[in-house]
Amino acid sequence: MTSRQLHLNAFLMSAGHHEAAWRLPESDPTGSTAVEHFVALAQLAERGTFDSLFLADSPVSRGVARRPSSVLEPTVLLTALAAATSRIGLIATASTSYNEPYNLARRFASLDHVSHGRAGWNIVTTAGPEAARNFNLDDQADHASRYRRAAEFVDVAVALWDSWADDAVLADQQAGIWADPERVRPIGHRGEFFSVEGALNVSRPPQGHPLLVQAGSSEDGKAFAARYAEAVFTAQQTVEDARAFYVDLKTRTAALGRDPETIKILPGIVPIVGSTEAEAAERSRLFDEHVDPEYGRAQLARTLRVPLDHLPLDAQLPADLPAEDEIEGAKSRYTLIVELARSERLTVRELILRLGGGRGHRTFHGTPEQVADTIEDWFSTGAADGFNIMPPALPGDLVSFVDQVIPILRDRGLFRREYTGATLRDHYGLQRPAGRSGEVAAIA
Amino acid sequence: MTSRQLHLNAFLMSAGHHEAAWRLPESDPTGSTAVEHFVALAQLAERGTFDSLFLADSPVSRGVARRPSSVLEPTVLLTALAAATSRIGLIATASTSYNEPYNLARRFASLDHVSHGRAGWNIVTTAGPEAARNFNLDDQADHASRYRRAAEFVDVAVALWDSWADDAVLADQQAGIWADPERVRPIGHRGEFFSVEGALNVSRPPQGHPLLVQAGSSEDGKAFAARYAEAVFTAQQTVEDARAFYVDLKTRTAALGRDPETIKILPGIVPIVGSTEAEAAERSRLFDEHVDPEYGRAQLARTLRVPLDHLPLDAQLPADLPAEDEIEGAKSRYTLIVELARSERLTVRELILRLGGGRGHRTFHGTPEQVADTIEDWFSTGAADGFNIMPPALPGDLVSFVDQVIPILRDRGLFRREYTGATLRDHYGLQRPAGRSGEVAAIA
Repeated sequence: MTSRQLHLNAFLMSAGHHEAAWRLPESDPTGSTAVEHFVALAQLAERGTFDSLFLADSPVSRGVARRPSSVLEPTVLLTALAAATSRIGLIATASTSYNEPYNLARRFASLDHVSHGRAGWNIVTTAGPEAARNFNLDDQADHASRYRRAAEFVDVAVALWDSWADDAVLADQQAGIWADPERVRPIGHRGEFFSVEGALNVSRPPQGHPLLVQAGSSEDGKAFAARYAEAVFTAQQTVEDARAFYVDLKTRTAALGRDPETIKILPGIVPIVGSTEAEAAERSRLFDEHVDPEYGRAQLARTLRVPLDHLPLDAQLPADLPAEDEIEGAKSRYTLIVELARSERLTVRELILRLGGGRGHRTFHGTPEQVADTIEDWFSTGAADGFNIMPPALPGDLVSFVDQVIPILRDRGLFRREYTGATLRDHYGLQRPAGRSGEVAAIA
Repeated sequence: MTSRQLHLNAFLMSAGHHEAAWRLPESDPTGSTAVEHFVALAQLAERGTFDSLFLADSPVSRGVARRPSSVLEPTVLLTALAAATSRIGLIATASTSYNEPYNLARRFASLDHVSHGRAGWNIVTTAGPEAARNFNLDDQADHASRYRRAAEFVDVAVALWDSWADDAVLADQQAGIWADPERVRPIGHRGEFFSVEGALNVSRPPQGHPLLVQAGSSEDGKAFAARYAEAVFTAQQTVEDARAFYVDLKTRTAALGRDPETIKILPGIVPIVGSTEAEAAERSRLFDEHVDPEYGRAQLARTLRVPLDHLPLDAQLPADLPAEDEIEGAKSRYTLIVELARSERLTVRELILRLGGGRGHRTFHGTPEQVADTIEDWFSTGAADGFNIMPPALPGDLVSFVDQVIPILRDRGLFRREYTGATLRDHYGLQRPAGRSGEVAAIA
């Protein structure tokens, strides 16, 4: 099989991505802290030969009443999932605003060693003042400053991973030389945000660098992705928007001298699968029936930065919303939601239902064939290199996807029947960056 | 069996605690980053019904040439070991000087959930300027300041673990209420070192709080242990010193209103076991033969804060060494080494061999009966509640201990034949601290 291949990531989230998932009779509402729940999901995704699985993260407790809000720290949970699987890639979100690069570089290097080359890092800057208040600050840094810190953070992490040459460990028992000190070098970094002497205390990860993933789609976010990201998660409501984003990001990447093939773009989708159209529509209604409109209204008010009483459920959005450049949080998601509501003239109630599935990611229902058609259409018309699959309820909708949609994608020659590589980089067709003593690193 | 029971911790370290262990023909010199090496050790320790296993840590790379110096981050490695075991406790070292309490409290809470109540945290302040230089500092904070930060750090972590009441999660699918917001409270901490709003984003750990462990034996360290620690690792060269330390720490603990039974004191020992005395002596010689005196001299010079050329190998230590209160690093270990050398009039070369096994921990060889005799003597004469077992080579000397020494301890009624509890606290006979909505927490 030499045709271009889809890349699929399984985005795992407690009872599922739909905000009402935990309320369905089929769901275990306490799965969010049960490692067994996630082990079963990881093994299911591996049976589906997904490239990777992924865990989101934010170091803050918010809105505990209405959703499963106790969550395991992703690098810990992913390590447990590494032990329960053997091939699937493992991507954890971690914040550059609320970690130190030495600590985080160690954890990802360690996860890459423990998983034999399956670790990825979704780099986030963490929007919102609530997280800042858990880390000795009264408010978050501004958007541009967060991204400058993120860039310096990644530069330091990469330098730390490369601080050991690939051939540094000699383990020469006779001579009593464990590592060649000439091949383990301090990094001596002094920058705007960090001073880090190095070297790291973990040898170079099996993948050279864990896979670098990014998910912000603001101007700052796209500039960052073009420079650093090897896989990008993005929310796109229409195939036209997705194509425009795809061309934009590939062009930006090429403009920096990187091969655009080295950045994989994966829009998030929330597919509600039914054996028939009627079954799919019925399942979609089941989710809608469990949505709590007051919870949705509060979430929306927070995203839009407007008071709750400005959002009557049966009216359209207020006309006087701020412009994107006034938003300090998730800028691109803000614009997506406002444009979705305005272009389709949705009431707040309708908008809440549309956002309930995937918080702005494209949510749709259909038969396995219809879902596969959408995937193939986006993939073959320049909108995506693959997809970030966000099952609305877990495990149910991941079972449907693996058992009903993936066989169709395989039959169409779009997706692997079995893993051919060993590492996360292998699955995504990305090279291992050369180390210090070798050729120039792939990530310049 | 109602007699007082020993507690045993298996201190795992790459090829073993003896600095020459990795050079023995029996050793895998690359085991330090191989998860399979540690999984085998963890399963072996669990077969020996050890209370717990333990991993040390320092966020710095130092002296890569002469020992296995690439090490996996302990919370990551312990999570992998949690997945490979079911009963043994899992204790990771983590620094209060180079972490943020919100992040670390989450990681330990997550490890406690993933392991179903088997997590412990060895609280260290991390001595030395080298680590500081990986975290935006030119030098470490002074000793007293590091301990003040450690105390505030633990206060914040405990408050975060307790920020969720035990009964906070309702998971009421019908009513759509996941957690009771009245039972998940911000902590609103504002102190000298940290401002943390909370609540944590992980529900209360299965153990209430992961077990709190401490290992410093300076004045500051003992004061800290008396207040916070539930298990204490300590280096003691003689049974008399160990008894004095034991009485001192139990007395300090009682003076703070804590039941002295709630702090378990575990001296470290490096037992070299042979089936006969001759075999044990032969194995001890094998280790000595592989010691690199120049490496030992450099290590010793660093610990003693004297230039290398002041340490001729065949002379005794210089007379003009600094007093303990001038040492900013590991104060109590410094004093132990100086006193050991002076009391036995050791040359630098002899001292290096004595320290090679356990860096100041009591190293001795003998038959299984003799090792068991020492353990029983210390245990039954007020010197220890148990031991931190530091096998000189791994897995070999842990195999000997499990297969030859533990059966004797069991036959004498000193040690469990099988686990009777489920959690790490159960193994150590320590209560689960009550949560916010219950009685007063055991750790005041």
